[in-house]
Amino acid sequence: MALIKELQGLLGAAHVLTGGDVARYAGDWTGVYTAQPLAVVRPADTAQVAAVLRLASRHGVAVVPVAGLTGLVGGAMTKGGLMLSVERLNRIREIRPDSRIAIVEAGVVLSRLHEAAEAQGLYFPLWFGARGSAMIGGVLSTNAGGSNVLRYGSTRALCLGLEVVLADGRVLNLMSELHKDNSGYDLKDLFIGAEGTLGVITAAVMKLVPAPRAHATATLALDSLPQALVLLNRLQAACGGMVEAFEYMPASYMRQLQAVRPDVGLPFASIPEVTLLVELAATARRDCEALADGSLPIVTLLQQVLAAMLAEGLLQDAVVAQSEAQRRAMWQRRELAAEITFARKPAIDTDVALPLDKVVAFFDLIHARLPVLDAGADTLSVAHLGDGNIHFTVFPSRKDAALKDAVISAVEDVVQDLGGSFSAEHGVGLSKLPSMARRKDAVALAVMAQIKAALDPDNRMNPGKVIPA
Amino acid sequence: MALIKELQGLLGAAHVLTGGDVARYAGDWTGVYTAQPLAVVRPADTAQVAAVLRLASRHGVAVVPVAGLTGLVGGAMTKGGLMLSVERLNRIREIRPDSRIAIVEAGVVLSRLHEAAEAQGLYFPLWFGARGSAMIGGVLSTNAGGSNVLRYGSTRALCLGLEVVLADGRVLNLMSELHKDNSGYDLKDLFIGAEGTLGVITAAVMKLVPAPRAHATATLALDSLPQALVLLNRLQAACGGMVEAFEYMPASYMRQLQAVRPDVGLPFASIPEVTLLVELAATARRDCEALADGSLPIVTLLQQVLAAMLAEGLLQDAVVAQSEAQRRAMWQRRELAAEITFARKPAIDTDVALPLDKVVAFFDLIHARLPVLDAGADTLSVAHLGDGNIHFTVFPSRKDAALKDAVISAVEDVVQDLGGSFSAEHGVGLSKLPSMARRKDAVALAVMAQIKAALDPDNRMNPGKVIPA
Repeated sequence: MALIKELQGLLGAAHVLTGGDVARYAGDWTGVYTAQPLAVVRPADTAQVAAVLRLASRHGVAVVPVAGLTGLVGGAMTKGGLMLSVERLNRIREIRPDSRIAIVEAGVVLSRLHEAAEAQGLYFPLWFGARGSAMIGGVLSTNAGGSNVLRYGSTRALCLGLEVVLADGRVLNLMSELHKDNSGYDLKDLFIGAEGTLGVITAAVMKLVPAPRAHATATLALDSLPQALVLLNRLQAACGGMVEAFEYMPASYMRQLQAVRPDVGLPFASIPEVTLLVELAATARRDCEALADGSLPIVTLLQQVLAAMLAEGLLQDAVVAQSEAQRRAMWQRRELAAEITFARKPAIDTDVALPLDKVVAFFDLIHARLPVLDAGADTLSVAHLGDGNIHFTVFPSRKDAALKDAVISAVEDVVQDLGGSFSAEHGVGLSKLPSMARRKDAVALAVMAQIKAALDPDNRMNPGKVIPA
Repeated sequence: MALIKELQGLLGAAHVLTGGDVARYAGDWTGVYTAQPLAVVRPADTAQVAAVLRLASRHGVAVVPVAGLTGLVGGAMTKGGLMLSVERLNRIREIRPDSRIAIVEAGVVLSRLHEAAEAQGLYFPLWFGARGSAMIGGVLSTNAGGSNVLRYGSTRALCLGLEVVLADGRVLNLMSELHKDNSGYDLKDLFIGAEGTLGVITAAVMKLVPAPRAHATATLALDSLPQALVLLNRLQAACGGMVEAFEYMPASYMRQLQAVRPDVGLPFASIPEVTLLVELAATARRDCEALADGSLPIVTLLQQVLAAMLAEGLLQDAVVAQSEAQRRAMWQRRELAAEITFARKPAIDTDVALPLDKVVAFFDLIHARLPVLDAGADTLSVAHLGDGNIHFTVFPSRKDAALKDAVISAVEDVVQDLGGSFSAEHGVGLSKLPSMARRKDAVALAVMAQIKAALDPDNRMNPGKVIPA
């Protein structure tokens, strides 16, 4: 085929994969979204990305950008389109510690940026389980969240500048390093979270923050979710902005963890209704430097809040990590969520956000509605509770498309009634297209389609994703 | 005229101003951008805004949204267009303290939101001199900055949801209250900062933060700007995220202040090279509650950093505010900036942003270049130094359009060479159109025009602003 030949001429045959060689790219972590692309191309730099897009434009072929393949919504699947992998755009172009920025290409793996920032005494505060595979281009395209959003915001809040190649091969240079830059429309934020439907993100200027020099991490047992929200308020009041993670694992999660990974162990003798993982992080000297008696101020602060809650009977039990190893073990229990969820089939997973004061109502309402739809259904949830972001998974008693749709609709109904969103941090991709059609403001959908048509008139950039037909 | 009659029928004659009645709207604070609109209309709610836009669409008339008229860039000027004032959309619809949000209409004056938040023990952290007149719709449309951006971000960072009426009268409902909501393109941020060229913002969901319960405020005398940057780093390291303002007033500013407002007084016996206003704000109990000896921990923390700097000779002198009255007096000196700048004509003012580590170079370079262009020119600057945002004003020795253009070009050259932006926080409006044409990435300009054409095909929303012809 002429296009493949031209791509080979452009990139070298080694970087144009076809046939069986594309297997690694043909599916994502879910195993659900699998299809055969026409070819996978691996350009080496922005100029090659632009050349690929010009070629694809001339041949009228769809282009689907792909990064670390850790998506959960089918955002990178293509049947017959050209898959454009950004993996070779993997340079950390520059880290400027004085301005606290990193200039990185789209193929840089998240954990590499973590390491590079750490070497400069800084921290890149986007943190989630897939950090060893996920790439900057992917986290930007999905506006990924994670465990530290409570303190630092989602990916969008961490990005100062962007380089994007448009559908026709034009290169859009928005590589600002500034915290204030009001020079026209906010194009950067339009491409962040657009899941590759408006162009290919090739590089970005990312914010770094001072590296936390001490953590205080604890696993807590509570009787109920309302008590967890009291605790969050107490921690915020006592520690200002130092609360970095506030993760919720209900009893069902801990039971499933025990079943799937008995090696990991449980934090308490029995499984409480509510298990929380909380973490504070300190950068200020007065919080991180050990006192004469060896105690760490930030740990003391956490212990004081917990002691008061224990005394009032609002907290059942607490374990504060005494070492980095103990801290890592606490995080491992939380980060096994994806593994635990995917261990059991069939599963219907959702990714919803609620106003914090509506989280309890969400669980009450959905647990009341679910048995009506499927008396044998089991559930599993895990939540970035500090953000009101719940990953609520239903294991139905049978594989049944109509039941699946009914369950998702029921979750959406409850979420919408409570002022929440059916899509919090994983993106829309293919999996949430029906939800977009049902739930998103109709004018917003029309405006999205108008923008898409303006920037990609031939609908070749990741077609069929994000915007319902 | 038929349109005026129809508008009167729609809104009532009292809310359709024409002729001499529009005087109050015909100019802004600068006094430079003055023109006669066809009429000023004052709709009462979103439905009336939509109806006005449908009427204007049918008659093919331009619509220019206006809020508090405190803009500095000519963004609300119209000769012969319909000026749509949002002043009657002035309801604070709801404040929800548990979710820390305020749902407000576009005509709410900033200081009213401050008061309403304060009544709930919360704070809306957008703060600048014009807060008594500026309205929510205006601060959103310009993505306004101010003195607290260092800690809380610009207006964009404070907005969770938006309601917008489009050029054709459709109402776009993006009123999310969520911190995570990845349901399609980020339309909200496209309308924020678009200066009314894409639609009329009618309401918004704004974030509130815990009210600072104690401040530590000081005015400082330093020998040089590099020492100021050392101080900023020391303060950040000692106090984590508590640094709320870091404002720079050079000797020229203090001299001008003394000349224009001798009643205000100077903080030090002689005027130092560098005067800084720094403020820390605390919400955590341990920082805000007075100790047994009556001292306030946050003030002690500031004093410790200042004492160390004094001992090292990095600081000449320091005054820490001992009362709210003293704190207000310190802020007054900074907030008279607009009055001082406008007191002298002709003036060429700029609003630039630089990477923090390039601020010193900016001043060195521009002060070297300026005398070549105009040996008799005087300058005045004031800066949100913590953001790298400098309001650099030149008083040329003569009124001369070519000289003005040369001065602005010289500032832009220096800014661009140092990786800065010619437009930081005031917006583009009319005043920075030539800069946009000269300095903005050409592809970015083209994409902006594509989006504008898609959403406002007849170019009736605030035409001629932001995007150069």
